Amino acid sequence: MRPTRLDDARIKDARRRIDPVFLDTPLYRCEPLDQLGCTVSIKLETANPVRSFKGRGTELVTSLLAESGARAAVCASAGNLGQGLAWSGRRRGLDITVVASSSVTPAKLDRIRALGATLELVDGDHEAARERAAALSRREGIRLVEDSLDIETCEGAATIGLELADAAPSADVVLVALGGGALATGVGHVIRSRMPGTEMICVQPAGAPAMTRSWHARRVVTTDSATTIADGVAGRFPIPAVLEDLLLVADDAVLVQEESIVAAMRLLLEHAGLVVEPSAALGIAAVLEDPARFAGRDVVTIVCGSNVDPDAYRRWTARS
Amino acid sequence: MRPTRLDDARIKDARRRIDPVFLDTPLYRCEPLDQLGCTVSIKLETANPVRSFKGRGTELVTSLLAESGARAAVCASAGNLGQGLAWSGRRRGLDITVVASSSVTPAKLDRIRALGATLELVDGDHEAARERAAALSRREGIRLVEDSLDIETCEGAATIGLELADAAPSADVVLVALGGGALATGVGHVIRSRMPGTEMICVQPAGAPAMTRSWHARRVVTTDSATTIADGVAGRFPIPAVLEDLLLVADDAVLVQEESIVAAMRLLLEHAGLVVEPSAALGIAAVLEDPARFAGRDVVTIVCGSNVDPDAYRRWTARS
Repeated sequence: MRPTRLDDARIKDARRRIDPVFLDTPLYRCEPLDQLGCTVSIKLETANPVRSFKGRGTELVTSLLAESGARAAVCASAGNLGQGLAWSGRRRGLDITVVASSSVTPAKLDRIRALGATLELVDGDHEAARERAAALSRREGIRLVEDSLDIETCEGAATIGLELADAAPSADVVLVALGGGALATGVGHVIRSRMPGTEMICVQPAGAPAMTRSWHARRVVTTDSATTIADGVAGRFPIPAVLEDLLLVADDAVLVQEESIVAAMRLLLEHAGLVVEPSAALGIAAVLEDPARFAGRDVVTIVCGSNVDPDAYRRWTARS
Repeated sequence: MRPTRLDDARIKDARRRIDPVFLDTPLYRCEPLDQLGCTVSIKLETANPVRSFKGRGTELVTSLLAESGARAAVCASAGNLGQGLAWSGRRRGLDITVVASSSVTPAKLDRIRALGATLELVDGDHEAARERAAALSRREGIRLVEDSLDIETCEGAATIGLELADAAPSADVVLVALGGGALATGVGHVIRSRMPGTEMICVQPAGAPAMTRSWHARRVVTTDSATTIADGVAGRFPIPAVLEDLLLVADDAVLVQEESIVAAMRLLLEHAGLVVEPSAALGIAAVLEDPARFAGRDVVTIVCGSNVDPDAYRRWTARS
């Protein structure tokens, strides 16, 4: 197999750099979800100070930055990376600026501010925020943390893979939310090298399909818009290097409908007692849409975030 | 200090016997709860196959039972012990019978059945279930697992204390839900010996105050009824030996109103993204009722269970 950009030794080292509060997260079978026709195990990435897996990557990147004497960093964020970077930067004395679309979930923006980061809002979507963050980085001469492109964001996420390889080495399937690709390439890299019998399936909303279309086309495909409640994975411009890696590690990439995402959120609330944000429900949505594919198999789904707007969440999970 | 019934060496050994899925649970500061005027850290005991801390005790008791060649056990349960015993017994080939009041949360009864236990419902409350379980034990000649009285249920819970002592040795306050007393005496035993500067406060619903009244009176006080939504802690007849231990380890025991429990559940949903059952919200309810007591202090609250009935939970957490 051609190697990805990720490096096993660096991933192992990442575990040493990441605050333990983000590591060794719960992995457990949720039997009430047997009703889906398969065995579902939850890898829970929400029980930490920023309520998403992003802290793994931001811990790694800020640890290296602080070591190099840097004083500041900037990122574009759909909400969760910004919280992670703000949290990790604060504890290492780094000035953090987060650029976000003004359409980002208000609860996420509030948390980024509360964590002491400078928050700059831009009109337009996440891609506009990425451009603005890059411009700020050039102007200020500070590090731009680019989700999925920067190897630390992938290798931080890859530590989830190490934990899966230790605790669930014989899982049949791992379902991973697909957005920019940090989580998918990170976890996928480890699955490919350490879980040879495991199928790694990426799941993306049909309303924001750029990376999935790119994976199937084996070249970058962009989209004109991204319309989904799964704000954490709503990019339009896949990064070529990340796609290259994803082509090496993913067994499949599938799209799911908004209704399935909502149904999956409701299922996780009612039968697993978990509040999850839409991106974190993508795995279960994929099972709901294609139960035959997963029938009787041991499925692990990574519940990657729980940062929801309370009102929107109530609406999504209200009894229909 | 006079010793409790609990033993440090056995608690240490318990960690070896308990399935790792129940151990080393998340402990993290939840900054959005700073609005309460204190620093709140969550010890999360819900991300496991039975969604409560009870698995720690039932793992210990069934491990010892299986070692001794036993084939069966019976317990009375308000819902969570039964799930734990059913889960732990199943994996060790033990026949488990659970006796419960017919008023127990239906979701909990469903889970006990689904885990393969024989479920027997009795009219009346939890005390009636305790009597019936004892009678069954005598008739069948099988082990009666008595929550809080049986030292394994306390020493299993005490492993939470070990984790707190390792990760939060300088916490100012640990808030513990108080029902029969297994959790409180278990965690309290370790706090007393390993966290000398930490105040251990038990919290019970004002509608089910027997153990708290007993603690203040320093003798067993029973009540005629127990009326609370916190079904996990609704006993009426405190066990003398457990009260003795509680008198040795608790710094205080306080009562909270039903409205505070509901407000705490809502707060944990909206600001921590956590589904909790009423018993698991008792700590936050105590802070809500007496903010001055906790102002500026580092408070740990043990979120001990998330087994809620979806409809009741929706009602409790609906916007007023």
